Amino acid sequence: MPDTSLIFPASEYQARVRALQDAMGHAGHDALLLTSPADVFYVTGFLTRFWESPARPWFIVVPATGVPVAVIPAIGAELMQRTWVTQIRTWDAPDPEDDGVSLLRDTLATLVPEHGSVGLPMGLETHLRMPLTDYERLRDGLAPRRFADATEVVQRVREIKSEAEVDRIRSTCAIAARAFDRVPEIAGAGRPLDAVFRDFQALLLGEGADWVSYLAGGAGPEGYGDVISPAPARALTQGDVLMLDTGAVREGYFCDFDRNYAIGAASDLARRTHAALWSATEDCLQALRPGMLARDAHHILTEALVRHGATPGGGRLGHGLGLTLTEWPSFTPKDNTPLRAGMVLTLEPGAILRPGCIMVHEENIVLRESCAELLSPRAPAELPEIT
Amino acid sequence: MPDTSLIFPASEYQARVRALQDAMGHAGHDALLLTSPADVFYVTGFLTRFWESPARPWFIVVPATGVPVAVIPAIGAELMQRTWVTQIRTWDAPDPEDDGVSLLRDTLATLVPEHGSVGLPMGLETHLRMPLTDYERLRDGLAPRRFADATEVVQRVREIKSEAEVDRIRSTCAIAARAFDRVPEIAGAGRPLDAVFRDFQALLLGEGADWVSYLAGGAGPEGYGDVISPAPARALTQGDVLMLDTGAVREGYFCDFDRNYAIGAASDLARRTHAALWSATEDCLQALRPGMLARDAHHILTEALVRHGATPGGGRLGHGLGLTLTEWPSFTPKDNTPLRAGMVLTLEPGAILRPGCIMVHEENIVLRESCAELLSPRAPAELPEIT
Repeated sequence: MPDTSLIFPASEYQARVRALQDAMGHAGHDALLLTSPADVFYVTGFLTRFWESPARPWFIVVPATGVPVAVIPAIGAELMQRTWVTQIRTWDAPDPEDDGVSLLRDTLATLVPEHGSVGLPMGLETHLRMPLTDYERLRDGLAPRRFADATEVVQRVREIKSEAEVDRIRSTCAIAARAFDRVPEIAGAGRPLDAVFRDFQALLLGEGADWVSYLAGGAGPEGYGDVISPAPARALTQGDVLMLDTGAVREGYFCDFDRNYAIGAASDLARRTHAALWSATEDCLQALRPGMLARDAHHILTEALVRHGATPGGGRLGHGLGLTLTEWPSFTPKDNTPLRAGMVLTLEPGAILRPGCIMVHEENIVLRESCAELLSPRAPAELPEIT
Repeated sequence: MPDTSLIFPASEYQARVRALQDAMGHAGHDALLLTSPADVFYVTGFLTRFWESPARPWFIVVPATGVPVAVIPAIGAELMQRTWVTQIRTWDAPDPEDDGVSLLRDTLATLVPEHGSVGLPMGLETHLRMPLTDYERLRDGLAPRRFADATEVVQRVREIKSEAEVDRIRSTCAIAARAFDRVPEIAGAGRPLDAVFRDFQALLLGEGADWVSYLAGGAGPEGYGDVISPAPARALTQGDVLMLDTGAVREGYFCDFDRNYAIGAASDLARRTHAALWSATEDCLQALRPGMLARDAHHILTEALVRHGATPGGGRLGHGLGLTLTEWPSFTPKDNTPLRAGMVLTLEPGAILRPGCIMVHEENIVLRESCAELLSPRAPAELPEIT
């Protein structure tokens, strides 16, 4: 980590705020209220693992013009002062009588006209990170001002990554790739899967991850049952396919990709399935362009899996990536979000080998005007064997 | 991890549901709606790091009588089926048109009478982990049923840990204690603080943590500026005091305590401050009893710090612990939560050495009828020196 908590130069954050203010203007909001770790980090550079404590809410107000205002627990003042934010108002949290509500209300009342609109992300993939009763008190206390959904404002701005952000995600991908290359050091027949999970996280840290926010995976004969479970103590055995899927973090930016390994010699079915997943990803890498919709990516991957002889798995086949492990859009049949140059995305096809047995494959890309540029070093075309 | 995702026998969860149902009955709720990772884990044993993805909401409904109902994304069905929960309803999430809202509405409409009440945690330290617009659609779709705050119901039940839970927290504390004992292997003059943070997380994993959800700390001459920052690349130097504060996790249960180390010989001020923090904690360990209020613990620690010659720091001086890094109550002057036997708590006094320089000290306990029982192996009375 750099000695400042700024991560980027102030100009990066100023450009973000201008983009948000442009979008707010079009949407008719007089201020944005942001409460999530990613949104706060995006505007301010305030990066801390302290979000892990649910005790205190944190607020950033982006007015229609001018600089953002942080309304935060006093415990965060020291760190916020090291960011580019100059307007910092604090209270002693947690306060069971008034946990920042009146301070936030007064701040918004000054910045938003009496009949104005406060934009708040309320839509798909958003959460309000403050107690609901406090939100209702805030809303009532600010009337006749109204709260309106600002999901579109935030998502359309945040989903286009700057080159500085792309560089950060590429760096995190490189860390994970180096750790994946070392999996044969820690996995093999007889090793318990939970030990492999622990060792793999240590490898990620050793290769430069600041922390490991996500690790899931699975192992079983030729494939696995699901992709979100923690690891059982069961020992790996010959014929298993092991999958590790990680969201490691460096300087606040995530990677999110996985790798598969055969324990011992891979069966023909396992090799063919891996090859189909790899080739379907290859087809999508060649075909994906700005102007397509998120659902088109789902269609491309599904068709390619069938063409390469695999049975496509359900669920989404990719998604956005950056400040959180997953961001919008989702590669599902229903997501009509336009794909644009500058989006960082995962391609994540899944195949069903038989009931209860799947295999998944994932790469991270940035979409360019004329191509999909890989951010994760490409997986080997053939399923690697750990012998 | 065990081969099942159950963590505990089904009887543990059944007892929890009965306790919640008793409390719901007194509060007049006809069902509880739970959306947070900790609340879902508490009722079901469903443990996954997949919560790291904000894409999908997850719902558990606890009816006034009978078994809980999981209304969850299809991607979680396999894992939920391995818990004790038998009533599982799924949808293909994320769905931009209807992300589980109608399925949840239909579920609640069946379980809650037309003029009944749905209890939802809405108070201090709670968040609604679903999009706000979806909550409003759900609320309107269920009218004339009403949503009412169930924070008290959930907190009064969850805050009393079973012996099985206490054992889990004690195990996690033991893992962290072994890692803290090994800090001299990874820290010393010349070592960058960010490398120490990475290595310490690897030590925690090596000692048995499933993952490391939280690590913060600081280092500076005799103390540090704050306790929530990520680590800068600055090298440790003679005269620094290094503090590491971790929330490691094993089988879903957290520890949360810290340790201080002098780099080289400790100054007299650093040694005296550490001794005052240690002694104030000792006094609180002796004095704390069920029947006191959370604010009494704050008072005990503050008075003891002054008596031992330190300047008490602001903020809260301890809190609950268990399924999340921090739980209610808070040791602040305003928190009137009664302390009861079975609560797992942290004692976390802080001292101000001079403006911008603090030192903190933390232990984890379970409150018993006649004493405070340590769960974290007690810190050394004297500030250890890494030479």
